[in-house]
Amino acid sequence: VTAVRTPAGAGTTATLAAFAADLTWEQLPEPVRAAARRTVANVVGLAVGASRHDAVEAALRALGDLGVRGGASLLGRSDTTGPTWAPLVHGIAMHVEDFDDTHLRTVLHPGAPVVAAALTAAELTGADGRALLTAVVAGVEVASKVGNALCPSHFDLGWHVTGTMGHLGAAAAAGHLLGLPPAQLHAALAVAATQAAGHTEQLGTTTKSLHPGRAAANGLEAALLARSGLTGPAAPVEGPRGLAALMAPVVDLDEAVRGLGEVWEVEDNAFKPYACGIVSHPVIDAGVELREHGVTAADVVSVEVVVRPVVLEVMGVEEPADGLASKFSVFHCFAVGLLDGAAGPAQYSDDRARDPEVVALRRRVRAVLDPDMPKDACRAVVRLADGREIVLHVQHATGSVDRPMTDEQLHRKFSLVVEPVLGARTDALWELAHGLDRLPSVGPLLEASRPT
Amino acid sequence: VTAVRTPAGAGTTATLAAFAADLTWEQLPEPVRAAARRTVANVVGLAVGASRHDAVEAALRALGDLGVRGGASLLGRSDTTGPTWAPLVHGIAMHVEDFDDTHLRTVLHPGAPVVAAALTAAELTGADGRALLTAVVAGVEVASKVGNALCPSHFDLGWHVTGTMGHLGAAAAAGHLLGLPPAQLHAALAVAATQAAGHTEQLGTTTKSLHPGRAAANGLEAALLARSGLTGPAAPVEGPRGLAALMAPVVDLDEAVRGLGEVWEVEDNAFKPYACGIVSHPVIDAGVELREHGVTAADVVSVEVVVRPVVLEVMGVEEPADGLASKFSVFHCFAVGLLDGAAGPAQYSDDRARDPEVVALRRRVRAVLDPDMPKDACRAVVRLADGREIVLHVQHATGSVDRPMTDEQLHRKFSLVVEPVLGARTDALWELAHGLDRLPSVGPLLEASRPT
Repeated sequence: VTAVRTPAGAGTTATLAAFAADLTWEQLPEPVRAAARRTVANVVGLAVGASRHDAVEAALRALGDLGVRGGASLLGRSDTTGPTWAPLVHGIAMHVEDFDDTHLRTVLHPGAPVVAAALTAAELTGADGRALLTAVVAGVEVASKVGNALCPSHFDLGWHVTGTMGHLGAAAAAGHLLGLPPAQLHAALAVAATQAAGHTEQLGTTTKSLHPGRAAANGLEAALLARSGLTGPAAPVEGPRGLAALMAPVVDLDEAVRGLGEVWEVEDNAFKPYACGIVSHPVIDAGVELREHGVTAADVVSVEVVVRPVVLEVMGVEEPADGLASKFSVFHCFAVGLLDGAAGPAQYSDDRARDPEVVALRRRVRAVLDPDMPKDACRAVVRLADGREIVLHVQHATGSVDRPMTDEQLHRKFSLVVEPVLGARTDALWELAHGLDRLPSVGPLLEASRPT
Repeated sequence: VTAVRTPAGAGTTATLAAFAADLTWEQLPEPVRAAARRTVANVVGLAVGASRHDAVEAALRALGDLGVRGGASLLGRSDTTGPTWAPLVHGIAMHVEDFDDTHLRTVLHPGAPVVAAALTAAELTGADGRALLTAVVAGVEVASKVGNALCPSHFDLGWHVTGTMGHLGAAAAAGHLLGLPPAQLHAALAVAATQAAGHTEQLGTTTKSLHPGRAAANGLEAALLARSGLTGPAAPVEGPRGLAALMAPVVDLDEAVRGLGEVWEVEDNAFKPYACGIVSHPVIDAGVELREHGVTAADVVSVEVVVRPVVLEVMGVEEPADGLASKFSVFHCFAVGLLDGAAGPAQYSDDRARDPEVVALRRRVRAVLDPDMPKDACRAVVRLADGREIVLHVQHATGSVDRPMTDEQLHRKFSLVVEPVLGARTDALWELAHGLDRLPSVGPLLEASRPT
């Protein structure tokens, strides 16, 4: 009953709450606004692309059993669902292809939980695009800064940072859009903090994508519950029995507020160009680059990719039997890079994993380990049928800190996932999703995402 | 990607899932059936009693903002809510007065999360009373056994066991009522395990009672999601990045299945006779006993209660300013025991905390510490105005393992909390709540709980 407070970290939650409540569009420097636009556009595209994914359908079937109906829109779908379920379904859809975004320092994927909560909160409140983008920045900053305080030990222990920190980010974003004053946003963070969850044991299952979905739903609900008067403790994050103390062996609480509103974490949110684990991205780049040199699979006698040992540890599957397994095959990754010039969800389908041309090419790829290879680099030595040898050096993989995806690349990625759903209407959705600050509400975006 | 499995605990979740899926009413020995009846009746009464509590109203106001409507009943209320929200509201109502039940070994309060999930699942499926009671036993066993594996280190670290283990119990109970086969119930436990949450930093706030509410809602949703095809890992509890590894420093996974279906944890579920922390219960018993000797407050010159040091550490408030603070005053506890012969929510109201008669009596009570006093015992030395001295020895407090509440005492407690809501209809609800195995559905129970 008598809680012992340590001076370190005192006031962490109060500081974060005031920041999230009071943040304005005018305060955001242009690069921060640009980063917010990109974060939103990227996951909006992914949600549309995955709007018929098995995991999404499973969640909606479960709701059907409950008779849940409501006025909340779903990206890429004509049906609606209850307002607390829309963030859950969106969180699943945005994350389920492992193709979203990454705050590299924490391995947090902030887009799915934060944008999913913000989108439904904006629909509920009639907020405009600038308010939505400001809320997303607030959410990404809160989730990432607290992540900085707890990581890497929090991640290393086995917590799925997207589920845990996602709760705080979603509550901050939703609380901002509901217009909560700092004291209520503080309570919303408390309600969210005590629900933070998600284990990396779940990787490789569809429940992994439930983590950001649940974080988004709980974050929105936390903001609504706090507004209605639910109370939490003063120090839900920094207290002796709070989130930080329970969920990370090594914590530096100063990091949770360091540079708040000055050093913007959302600027370090990187986008995945390829729908698989980040360690194989340099190798895919090598395949794509080879294709750009005019080389075809038929020209290739053998390929030797020089990579860090971790690449084989997590991506060493030589004969992937299905699409999911092919995400863990660096050989498959190189092959689709050369054959397709892409590595989106289509390249990791069951069909593509078993395609004879892909199988034949990937069998000609072998890996050589080099512990000194930087983590965003690789080398590929390609022997061609005409006797030539091509050596490719990928120094910084696409989507790495030193080589971020350009807006054009992000647009191409968006098109890749959205076109199968919206066809010729894809570019119109991109314009809305990437230009949200011009919209008076999120209505036009949601409307444009619906298949005809 | 290549998960390293330790042999210890292998198959824990599968074993628990098969147990919960396959359990039948016929398998339950009569003392287990009786324990299940008592567990259900106790929290049903509490939910009715707290059906207008501030925290319940706050949750329902938050839902109102969402336009959530649905067919799920709420105990003690005429309005309904969405089927995923009813367990949340019930979990809050059952736990918010700190008056529910305790699996003493783990400090888990299994009734609220398990019964809240089971009740709505039974309403959704049309299950009969025996199926509900069987599901409650399945849920209590799963939550308590896994709790045995993780506690005390899990609790000592700061996890609110009712929130964390409550997720597993709620999923097991709901999965049983949905008739999930073992493989799907296994997936339901996986979906629930990765959402397990709740920090003891939240004690003393209304968000604490959200923990069993969220556990109940997530447990029911986990069962529905698993039925619809969401998948989880094989070892969500026992795996290297699963619940046990992340959430407790000392784990004995064998405990999670030891005696499953033979040694019934539900039989060790104790009921709180008094609406405050358990350490002051012997002192309240002393006050009640003194009253039964015909002694009144006016007769009492001074009282010396001999207690363990922990009692003053957590219950040492000498001049409680309001109802909540009076729950942490062993002096107040003794005073209401003698004056009212009870220590229910009414004895911890703001009015009662400030009542001059109570204040005057509690100022004549002082505490003497004895480190050797057993935790369920106390001694009270009472000096009376006529010069007599009465020495009372409470050897086992009411509601302790060695002196469980009788059915008659439980019925009186039920009446104490339900009568302010239902008046003369209270006994009829007790008959239904404590005799569920005679009901063809939960409909009559829910109907009888509604105020006219």
